[in-house]
Amino acid sequence: MNKKTIAIDMDGVIADIETHLITFYKEKHGIEISREGIQGLSEEKAFPIKEDLHSIVNSKGFFRTIPVMPDAVESLRLLQENFEIFIVSAAMEFPVSLGEKFEWLKEHFPFIGWENIILCGSKRIINTDYMIDDHPKNLDSFTGKPIMFTSFHNTEKENYLRVNTWKEAVAFLHQTL
Amino acid sequence: MNKKTIAIDMDGVIADIETHLITFYKEKHGIEISREGIQGLSEEKAFPIKEDLHSIVNSKGFFRTIPVMPDAVESLRLLQENFEIFIVSAAMEFPVSLGEKFEWLKEHFPFIGWENIILCGSKRIINTDYMIDDHPKNLDSFTGKPIMFTSFHNTEKENYLRVNTWKEAVAFLHQTL
Repeated sequence: MNKKTIAIDMDGVIADIETHLITFYKEKHGIEISREGIQGLSEEKAFPIKEDLHSIVNSKGFFRTIPVMPDAVESLRLLQENFEIFIVSAAMEFPVSLGEKFEWLKEHFPFIGWENIILCGSKRIINTDYMIDDHPKNLDSFTGKPIMFTSFHNTEKENYLRVNTWKEAVAFLHQTL
Repeated sequence: MNKKTIAIDMDGVIADIETHLITFYKEKHGIEISREGIQGLSEEKAFPIKEDLHSIVNSKGFFRTIPVMPDAVESLRLLQENFEIFIVSAAMEFPVSLGEKFEWLKEHFPFIGWENIILCGSKRIINTDYMIDDHPKNLDSFTGKPIMFTSFHNTEKENYLRVNTWKEAVAFLHQTL
């Protein structure tokens, strides 16, 4: 039997963009952003220099140097034994990120083959059994089982099954087997 | 009502890779490859310096400079009135192509927004109403209505509804409305 398929997002799910932006704001602007203080805020409100936020994430090297989310590597390796994993990232808004995201995956997740990587705009035409994402807009149109990965900006959203960590995600998916 | 969706391939469908390779072989190697002579041959047999073929298509600038397929621009603009178009290209095998394909689309098809571009490995998890592609391997796993766009390497394949030109593709799709 074919393995069930999981579409896994990058930023906020396997790539720790929150830590990356907090570090960036501190180093570049001397601004301390507290993790507790941004819970429930939109990305624009959490990182308030708005024009700057867009230019930061569109700058060369930004995506290439994002830290990996805790436990993500071990969890995906474990899940791959029982599921087929696709990395599905909405990268088209930031064209500079295309090559960098590919290189980042090759470095940190070398066990994910190029056949299983998708860089897209909208995720509306992605068809897998599960989708793990931090953005409600991606989960809203999904026709399989959506799983929301907790991020500061989605703590107030109640619509989806939620996992707070990769350990929780693995535990949930394993009990579906 | 939502428009029906079409996944449209790039190489061999809106990007004329055959002409591009013929020109390249002539200019680089002085080898004349005749269009008639390669009908029904695989890509590897049609362009026989195999190692070279892989390094050609993976070299900087190759995808950025492919000519546009005849009538593709006008046809996609016309189809967009009645369908939602997604450009879906298997680009991951050639990472250099990622940024170049995005730039190429922006130049030649500026009316296709970034939300509707997908650069992927396998197309197995793409879910649209129609898929226009020249490679049987992409159409085989497709769950919507597959449409084969004629290319030298697929002339012997009989499994799919075939269109030989963009005018034929538009005519077929319009009669489904």
